[in-house]
Amino acid sequence: MTFAFDLATAVTKTSEGVYSGKVHDGWDIRGNANGGYVMALLASAMREHAGRPDPISITLHYLAPLPAGDFEITTQVIKRGRMFCTVTASMVVNGRIAVRAIGAFSEAPAHDHGMQHHGIALTEVPPFEQCTRRTAEGEIVPLALMSKLDMRLHPDDRGFATGQPNGVPRIRGWFAFADGRPNDTLSVLLAADAFPPPVFNLLAVPGWVPTVEFTVHVRAVPAPGPLRGEFTAKEIQGGMFEEDGVIWDEHGTLIAQSRQIGLIPL
Amino acid sequence: MTFAFDLATAVTKTSEGVYSGKVHDGWDIRGNANGGYVMALLASAMREHAGRPDPISITLHYLAPLPAGDFEITTQVIKRGRMFCTVTASMVVNGRIAVRAIGAFSEAPAHDHGMQHHGIALTEVPPFEQCTRRTAEGEIVPLALMSKLDMRLHPDDRGFATGQPNGVPRIRGWFAFADGRPNDTLSVLLAADAFPPPVFNLLAVPGWVPTVEFTVHVRAVPAPGPLRGEFTAKEIQGGMFEEDGVIWDEHGTLIAQSRQIGLIPL
Repeated sequence: MTFAFDLATAVTKTSEGVYSGKVHDGWDIRGNANGGYVMALLASAMREHAGRPDPISITLHYLAPLPAGDFEITTQVIKRGRMFCTVTASMVVNGRIAVRAIGAFSEAPAHDHGMQHHGIALTEVPPFEQCTRRTAEGEIVPLALMSKLDMRLHPDDRGFATGQPNGVPRIRGWFAFADGRPNDTLSVLLAADAFPPPVFNLLAVPGWVPTVEFTVHVRAVPAPGPLRGEFTAKEIQGGMFEEDGVIWDEHGTLIAQSRQIGLIPL
Repeated sequence: MTFAFDLATAVTKTSEGVYSGKVHDGWDIRGNANGGYVMALLASAMREHAGRPDPISITLHYLAPLPAGDFEITTQVIKRGRMFCTVTASMVVNGRIAVRAIGAFSEAPAHDHGMQHHGIALTEVPPFEQCTRRTAEGEIVPLALMSKLDMRLHPDDRGFATGQPNGVPRIRGWFAFADGRPNDTLSVLLAADAFPPPVFNLLAVPGWVPTVEFTVHVRAVPAPGPLRGEFTAKEIQGGMFEEDGVIWDEHGTLIAQSRQIGLIPL
């Protein structure tokens, strides 16, 4: 079986370091491709060019909204080291750079090797089935992306959806694919930006909060099942917000940490 | 008066987007330039090329150790937008890329504009004078960098220095320059990597913990006085650690958030 996410993140090498592909319909919010999906697209080309499977650290700067359609990604190996292959990439749409990326690719280490210290408590979320499924109708605006996913939100964190934001900028829940695609280190990048922005629980009228920069550290290969996520906006000032994410797999292993900085209406 | 940090981060434009400069002696730990100093060097060239003063988000990948000596930085504007100028840069030493960077430069917004939410409590540190000054002799190995700085550590967090790590991967303290240079959005980048790695308080034998990737978000322009910092390593597994930093100015305004991922001996 070919899963939707694999089709939607496929890229074709056209020459050394150049990949063509398509921003697919249905991975967007109101016609604008989701930032995590875009990160997975870039990583798809970058990991192939690097010849290493896992994005240990990947950073994107978003320079233009991305409607569905063709793109070209050009990638360049900056250093091919023993542990990491460091790669940059540009996604070009209609002759313009829409996204710029840098990443260190490797084989994700076994999480249980070496010193262990877990200062972030596994976030408490009711079992998958007891959380509220997000739909393509969306909580506020249509979310085409949700036709591809099976995402469940912690009932306590859904206030923004009913006009009753609880004043706590935190969103917890589960991430899985609607077609049952197993999770891996590529889909983790999508999961890191697929939850509603936690700032929604602070805003009277949630709206578009564009991301400027987004970094994900992949700390282990996930088990195939649903991913558990907690997203918080800790500091909002000067018209900008920071959002931190932590993702665990179904066994409670820490899989990724993410951080983005974005704009919030003044 | 010309301050040491300004001399040590000066770059000279040699052609469009090309800057020459010198990794100065005395900003290193055992001959290897401090990662925050290196970030300030890159930012010095990038902000000049961008024509915008403040690194709102800046990411570096460290590809080689940096001894004192000449370098060339080549920078490229990816997008000159209304709010941000997005710039990439490579630091080249002896014909090899030693550091690769990307950043979004702008004028830092007034911190008290717009919605405010402060989810991170101002860290408690005794007054500057009551904290322990770091010396160039260092706690474990010589720290040439400390000849340039007047850094004070929270007495509770110095266990690593006396062979009695307290098992809490957290370092709190103050950052100032030895020659009284006022802080600004360039020196904040140095401050974000000048504290001892918090993992030192977990290790029996602290050693070199090389940074792979380092991102700083500058959230406001600091008041000129000492900066207050808290650095924690929350998640260590698979031979890697993450380190998060928060920096406030003397008025308690949040100035920057930082995150890095690095290697820890397995």
